[in-house]
Amino acid sequence: MATIRDVANRAQVSNSTVSNVLNGRTSRMTSETLARVQQAMAELGYNPSFAARSLKTGQSALLGLLVPSTANPWFGEIAARIEQVARDKYDCHILLGNTQRDVQSEARFIGSLQSFGVRGLIVMSALADESHLLNAARQGMAVVSYDRRAAGGVAPIIDHVTVDNHKAGTLAALHLVAKGHTRLAFVSAFGRTVNRVERISGFLEAASAHGAETVVVEADSSHGFADDQWAALGSELAGKLLREHPDVTGIVTVNGTLAISLTSALRDRGFEVPRDFSVVGIDDMPLSTMVSPAMTSIRIPTGVIAESMVDRVMARCASNDLPPGETVFEPTLIERRSVAAPRAHSLP
Amino acid sequence: MATIRDVANRAQVSNSTVSNVLNGRTSRMTSETLARVQQAMAELGYNPSFAARSLKTGQSALLGLLVPSTANPWFGEIAARIEQVARDKYDCHILLGNTQRDVQSEARFIGSLQSFGVRGLIVMSALADESHLLNAARQGMAVVSYDRRAAGGVAPIIDHVTVDNHKAGTLAALHLVAKGHTRLAFVSAFGRTVNRVERISGFLEAASAHGAETVVVEADSSHGFADDQWAALGSELAGKLLREHPDVTGIVTVNGTLAISLTSALRDRGFEVPRDFSVVGIDDMPLSTMVSPAMTSIRIPTGVIAESMVDRVMARCASNDLPPGETVFEPTLIERRSVAAPRAHSLP
Repeated sequence: MATIRDVANRAQVSNSTVSNVLNGRTSRMTSETLARVQQAMAELGYNPSFAARSLKTGQSALLGLLVPSTANPWFGEIAARIEQVARDKYDCHILLGNTQRDVQSEARFIGSLQSFGVRGLIVMSALADESHLLNAARQGMAVVSYDRRAAGGVAPIIDHVTVDNHKAGTLAALHLVAKGHTRLAFVSAFGRTVNRVERISGFLEAASAHGAETVVVEADSSHGFADDQWAALGSELAGKLLREHPDVTGIVTVNGTLAISLTSALRDRGFEVPRDFSVVGIDDMPLSTMVSPAMTSIRIPTGVIAESMVDRVMARCASNDLPPGETVFEPTLIERRSVAAPRAHSLP
Repeated sequence: MATIRDVANRAQVSNSTVSNVLNGRTSRMTSETLARVQQAMAELGYNPSFAARSLKTGQSALLGLLVPSTANPWFGEIAARIEQVARDKYDCHILLGNTQRDVQSEARFIGSLQSFGVRGLIVMSALADESHLLNAARQGMAVVSYDRRAAGGVAPIIDHVTVDNHKAGTLAALHLVAKGHTRLAFVSAFGRTVNRVERISGFLEAASAHGAETVVVEADSSHGFADDQWAALGSELAGKLLREHPDVTGIVTVNGTLAISLTSALRDRGFEVPRDFSVVGIDDMPLSTMVSPAMTSIRIPTGVIAESMVDRVMARCASNDLPPGETVFEPTLIERRSVAAPRAHSLP
């Protein structure tokens, strides 16, 4: 079987150039050199199998990434950022799993990662039940969980990286209060993940502290496991809001896609944002500026969070002794055009 | 070193049950059995390394997937579908690469796949230059390329799966013509990928055949490598259209996100869709129904295409003799609310 040295001899390059090709470090290589090395590999039938590499180094340059679904634009965006940081900074590739927030599906995916010898995992489902993650950690996997806090009182065995979701709810409520709104609704999809519970409590506490009336309006059933039936979700919630709480003037939505779909569903019923209702979305994302009105949002620092999670999981893969920690990022308010003073007119 | 048999003995299950756990086939297993097997593995320090598996079977249950970026909702959606089909149907996992339509970056990613021993690749960038894909194919990788046709006249060495992009442009133009529009614009991002060229030619031919005046309006520079600066892109193109071609009444956009961002940019300038302009987007996606007005779109059958690509690449991984082919899917028109008769009034 041909060796790296054989390939290097045939291509008339150094062993380290062949190694660079094998490891994808070709950015400073001329395309002619790259082609010569690839041709030599092909001619010699050299198959640099992952197997051989993995046996030698004892670990693979692979990370697992679990998201509800990249079909959800927010998860699609952060998945892209995580993958790019892992590759650019660590020469590490991402095994993607879209697990629809299903615990069984997540556990199966983790089993596959273990059988592949993958030792690092980033999980973004924010499920209340993280026992499958704890099991993986006990078996030696470095796990970073996004958007839920560590359980209090016990030494954590997995990393938690999150944004201060309580503060996100607070900032949104305070912005509406500052604009003069006194009747506020928090509008959310079906099901209370850990981050949703915190956003809602932040909203309720801040609004109540300023004497505003509050209501939480939630969908009665799931609109897709990744909440990706946005039109149906926005339509259900707009109908429910108008029917049950027509006095509300200021709305906070649990995420950015719902801010958009709710605004659209209101427009379809003859109501305009911000003329008739003001809307603040949590989870700012590129889509927030693609619509009209551009949506006032609570920004989660996606890029910084993505890099932080990759850094954490790589550090813990490299050093088993590194204790897991908790990193909490701060949300910020981005003002655009979906919030105005409360309407003085009756609804049309 | 512990074996599968050791694990099975300790957990008091069959060897095949352990094998099922290793391969992620746990859906019909009680959680108690799964936990017992996992505990036995942990206690024995059993590490079912991918390395050992891969050496034995000679190929890994991994596929590479190259997209411009999952931050683009259309690619995020199809990436999720590809990953789920691969996992559910073939117990195969996806190595994701967001390569921003950069040839060098794609070539590097492919080099990494080769070093991992990955033998199958789905590519979705529709670049004019596919020499790096041909190189990979010559070195034994089964490659399925999305959204460009095979070069005519030569025996293909990679699979092409695509939609009839020429027909997509045609259907969009014919719909506007049928509604009475005679001054049409095709609006597109910077850069002519293969699929864009075909969509534009289908549009121009159909519109001209029916006597409509046509113009192609393209951005003057890139708005993000994955065209993900949608607000800026829509704003530039709305400004250019209004400035240079104010007589246009019917618009076809090269993709669905641009249909939304252009509509929003027009609204920000005081123009409403479909009152002042009718808009048809190519690439229907869930977002198309999330906005108001819901966008009339040319639907690409994403789910069927995703499954077809995974089937092709798996079949060719299984049988080296299978000749590559070309599969072309049909687009269809989905009428919603962004198209009306051409305005009889002057623009506001």
